[in-house]
Amino acid sequence: MRGYTEDKDAYLKRLRRIEGQIRGLQRMVENDEYCIDVLTQIAAATKALQAVSLGLMDEHLRHCVAEAIAEGGETADAKVKEASDAIARLVRS
Amino acid sequence: MRGYTEDKDAYLKRLRRIEGQIRGLQRMVENDEYCIDVLTQIAAATKALQAVSLGLMDEHLRHCVAEAIAEGGETADAKVKEASDAIARLVRS
Amino acid sequence: MRGYTEDKDAYLKRLRRIEGQIRGLQRMVENDEYCIDVLTQIAAATKALQAVSLGLMDEHLRHCVAEAIAEGGETADAKVKEASDAIARLVRS
Amino acid sequence: MRGYTEDKDAYLKRLRRIEGQIRGLQRMVENDEYCIDVLTQIAAATKALQAVSLGLMDEHLRHCVAEAIAEGGETADAKVKEASDAIARLVRS
Repeated sequence: MRGYTEDKDAYLKRLRRIEGQIRGLQRMVENDEYCIDVLTQIAAATKALQAVSLGLMDEHLRHCVAEAIAEGGETADAKVKEASDAIARLVRS
Repeated sequence: MRGYTEDKDAYLKRLRRIEGQIRGLQRMVENDEYCIDVLTQIAAATKALQAVSLGLMDEHLRHCVAEAIAEGGETADAKVKEASDAIARLVRS
Repeated sequence: MRGYTEDKDAYLKRLRRIEGQIRGLQRMVENDEYCIDVLTQIAAATKALQAVSLGLMDEHLRHCVAEAIAEGGETADAKVKEASDAIARLVRS
Repeated sequence: MRGYTEDKDAYLKRLRRIEGQIRGLQRMVENDEYCIDVLTQIAAATKALQAVSLGLMDEHLRHCVAEAIAEGGETADAKVKEASDAIARLVRS
């Protein structure tokens, strides 16, 4: 079980929609559509991916990190560090 | 013809790879893989999308914006403004 | 006492350095230095601010969020939501 | 003369305001203000810096890049590459 398991269907639905957006981008490039329009769609797909990340991060804090903190000690420290590193990757991507 | 048309195959290949990454994310969620590992893969897909955007923007400046600037006047102004707005969306996505 | 209080001097030192970077930017603009060089320095100041944010977020998780989680119930829920919203602002800034 | 020279006073005013925001952050940390409030102010300062960057980039395209494109040849190529690299740094900061 993961923090996101309860919302798995919602996440799968969002990821399938993003997959569709990426295929849509392929069609736009295939059809030589205007660069700016392609860029606008890429920004939309990036935002959708970002929203999935933020949702997963929230659930991770709520479940995995919370459980580790309840356990305390090194387990908690390691889990918070791991979460902070993931937040840094998210901010820098 | 678009600025990117000459490199169309390369862009299509990259977008198909990103599509594969998104399907890979669906499998990870399907299999309840660890949140942090899913987040790491999302950051990788986001970076790949970002790189496609930066490539397209470079080609757009080189071709579409350059042609409009050569034309001068309002055509040039409008094209630069359009590019600047796209850069802002890219920075904020 | 805050999560960052123990490292207050380090954070103040980093913020003073960023203040110096911003004054340096003013001098560059005052002296009509080349746009790209100004942009490069702005990117450096932005990265420095980002690093301060990530440090504060880590300490916040380690102390404030951990304490609230230990308390459990609504206190924990509210504190995690608040942290997630702050992570979203950080990602979108 | 630079692309931004005509708007120099406006840029200097904005940079001085950002400098004030950074000093404000120092006071907040000095006074042990709540982490989330400090993070919120950092996000605001980051956005302000980002807006200055986008303004400078627009002016750079309008003047420096446009002049180089009018000149054509290697000068234009080098100037567009330089602008694209600066856009990449902006996106990744």
